[in-house]
Amino acid sequence: MPKISQKGQAMPASPIRKLVPFAEAAKKRGNKVFHLNIGQPDIKTPQVALDAVKNNDIQVLSYARSEGSEEYREKLTNYYKKHHIHVNSEDIIITTGGSEALLFTLGSITDVGDEIIIPEPFYANYNGFSTANNIKVVPIISTIDDGFALPAIEEFEKLITPKTKAILICNPGNPTGYLYSKEEIDKLKALVLKHDLFLIADEVYREFVYDGNEHNSVMSLDGLDQHAIMIDSVSKRYSMCGARIGCVVSKNKDLIQTILKFAQARLSSPTYALLASEAALETPQIYFDEVIVEYVDRRNVLIEELKKIPDLKVSSPKGAFYCIAELPVKDADDFAQWMLESFHDNNETVMVAPASGFYSTPGSGKNQIRIAYVLNKESLIRSVELLKLALEQYKG
Amino acid sequence: MPKISQKGQAMPASPIRKLVPFAEAAKKRGNKVFHLNIGQPDIKTPQVALDAVKNNDIQVLSYARSEGSEEYREKLTNYYKKHHIHVNSEDIIITTGGSEALLFTLGSITDVGDEIIIPEPFYANYNGFSTANNIKVVPIISTIDDGFALPAIEEFEKLITPKTKAILICNPGNPTGYLYSKEEIDKLKALVLKHDLFLIADEVYREFVYDGNEHNSVMSLDGLDQHAIMIDSVSKRYSMCGARIGCVVSKNKDLIQTILKFAQARLSSPTYALLASEAALETPQIYFDEVIVEYVDRRNVLIEELKKIPDLKVSSPKGAFYCIAELPVKDADDFAQWMLESFHDNNETVMVAPASGFYSTPGSGKNQIRIAYVLNKESLIRSVELLKLALEQYKG
Repeated sequence: MPKISQKGQAMPASPIRKLVPFAEAAKKRGNKVFHLNIGQPDIKTPQVALDAVKNNDIQVLSYARSEGSEEYREKLTNYYKKHHIHVNSEDIIITTGGSEALLFTLGSITDVGDEIIIPEPFYANYNGFSTANNIKVVPIISTIDDGFALPAIEEFEKLITPKTKAILICNPGNPTGYLYSKEEIDKLKALVLKHDLFLIADEVYREFVYDGNEHNSVMSLDGLDQHAIMIDSVSKRYSMCGARIGCVVSKNKDLIQTILKFAQARLSSPTYALLASEAALETPQIYFDEVIVEYVDRRNVLIEELKKIPDLKVSSPKGAFYCIAELPVKDADDFAQWMLESFHDNNETVMVAPASGFYSTPGSGKNQIRIAYVLNKESLIRSVELLKLALEQYKG
Repeated sequence: MPKISQKGQAMPASPIRKLVPFAEAAKKRGNKVFHLNIGQPDIKTPQVALDAVKNNDIQVLSYARSEGSEEYREKLTNYYKKHHIHVNSEDIIITTGGSEALLFTLGSITDVGDEIIIPEPFYANYNGFSTANNIKVVPIISTIDDGFALPAIEEFEKLITPKTKAILICNPGNPTGYLYSKEEIDKLKALVLKHDLFLIADEVYREFVYDGNEHNSVMSLDGLDQHAIMIDSVSKRYSMCGARIGCVVSKNKDLIQTILKFAQARLSSPTYALLASEAALETPQIYFDEVIVEYVDRRNVLIEELKKIPDLKVSSPKGAFYCIAELPVKDADDFAQWMLESFHDNNETVMVAPASGFYSTPGSGKNQIRIAYVLNKESLIRSVELLKLALEQYKG
């Protein structure tokens, strides 16, 4: 019998996946499960995007251009301009989700065994894209006590080797909700210039920045044209996770030409979703204003309620819609499973994402969970109440 | 300035891409260009699929399940049953196009430096997916004089090393139009069993089989459950190339579990396209009957006309909608460019795909082109007439 490769074996499974059967069983037993575990917003997709698909007159559903249409990329430059990002259409390659944008980027700048440095905890699938490319993630720890701020630059420098090709950040961050300051981004700029590395910034949560803070894109920095690579996606911005449209943006022409070859090999991004994504650029500002007000409300309620739980530690997120909470338990994986398997209050329980999947250093984050505040306020309040009750009853 | 990786440099560019600027220039000079170079059918997408998207009532465009919905995969098993392929829903992972199906398959069964054997000429993007996975394509030549039949099994055996992980075929074939016989498939079965290799079959042209021939799927062979992997796609079957929905099918549970991890890392296939693809399964048989009649007509006209050109050699395709023609020129790349740059008749010219891009052995196929018969008969007749005139005038 032919065998799965070592790479196939090393490919990480979704950190939430193993809990899914327990959640399904809990529902079968008649329980309601509040899902704090997923990054799928409940916000309505902009009507203008939905309408563009409903009113389409496609007769032959043909390939789109591998790099995305000139028209869509041109419109994107106008959108970016509003966010102080000045690029041209030829600096953009449209991809099938932010996932593919990162996959192509890693494929273009790394060879077997190369390394990328990522502050941890980080978005779990960065591990998968690295494994797929036969490269190594080198984690650099950021801590809940520092609110997940950028680790000291000296710590980065200790990790840089001849195999280091890039530093990857997510800003604002999934799973931390941390927003890097201008000073932090400037420090990263100096670091990558000094060591001649790429700086990849996953900026898919650009709009989700709270409390009057400013988002600082790596594309807005002077003198970083050859080093900065931005990963983007329509998924969160327009609550269009199922579209699977993203892009890579860079002023580095060699990089864009190389990514284009990856894009050509897979021919095209999905045509219907491109229609929706192009139309979504017409979304009125009020849509975002309302969404931000809603998320700030949710975050405030969530953090306020969480802080009432004894011995629970939580960082205050400045962006995105996640936070990391440290629980008074030894093993959050076990606790999360126990909540689904053995706990309910009035036939209600809660599903959380154990944070261990967001760390690459073994044993890190064992007592942490990620909470996504993509539910309405009432559900969030009840979810935290359930979490509190569960912690009281749990003897892990 | 940070550098593109060796892999990024090795990534092959689309073999047609370099001709595109010449085609655009020809059009700017007022010429009509007949496109024999692309595999984008002009056939209308089934109405039932178009309607499913137009009539959707999605309000939040959310992620689909990473492996595809249970319902869609269940319906697919019924479709396959009609083609004598007996599988269960858990043997199927839905992917973003056949491209992703192959990318995930190679990621699951190969490690750095491993080899896959592919009869050449082959679909050019197999090179790209192999480069992306840091593995090596080992070509085995099939010849126009044999009509691109399966090379002798002894020739395969000469190429098998400890690094060989799979044999990959496209059946019916792009770019050859060749359809493997039951005997040939049986020979491959014996070979992969003897050497414990995977047998990957790209069967996306399953429906496009002519002259009363039968398609023989690798999934219909007894005793090959652990070795057979089928790559599929809705692109050609329903003229839905822009959907980007495909799948991997295999009875090998380790493989499917591994591919699922790759699928989870990229979260979801495009949701609108999944709607269209599921609905497309309701396409009435008459749609396919009419399409097949049309393609047989086109093929017959094309081959008949091509045979009138002196010193041109062409194989007679039994499936798909491509053929390879050998021209009385030294360098078909140069000839193809010349036709766009320096030739026209009555302000009309023709664009073909030089076949060198479909070969992995350097220097092979230099005097060959691939012709896609995805145009109507009149256009095909005129295209071949233009080709004939061009060959008479060309002094390459």
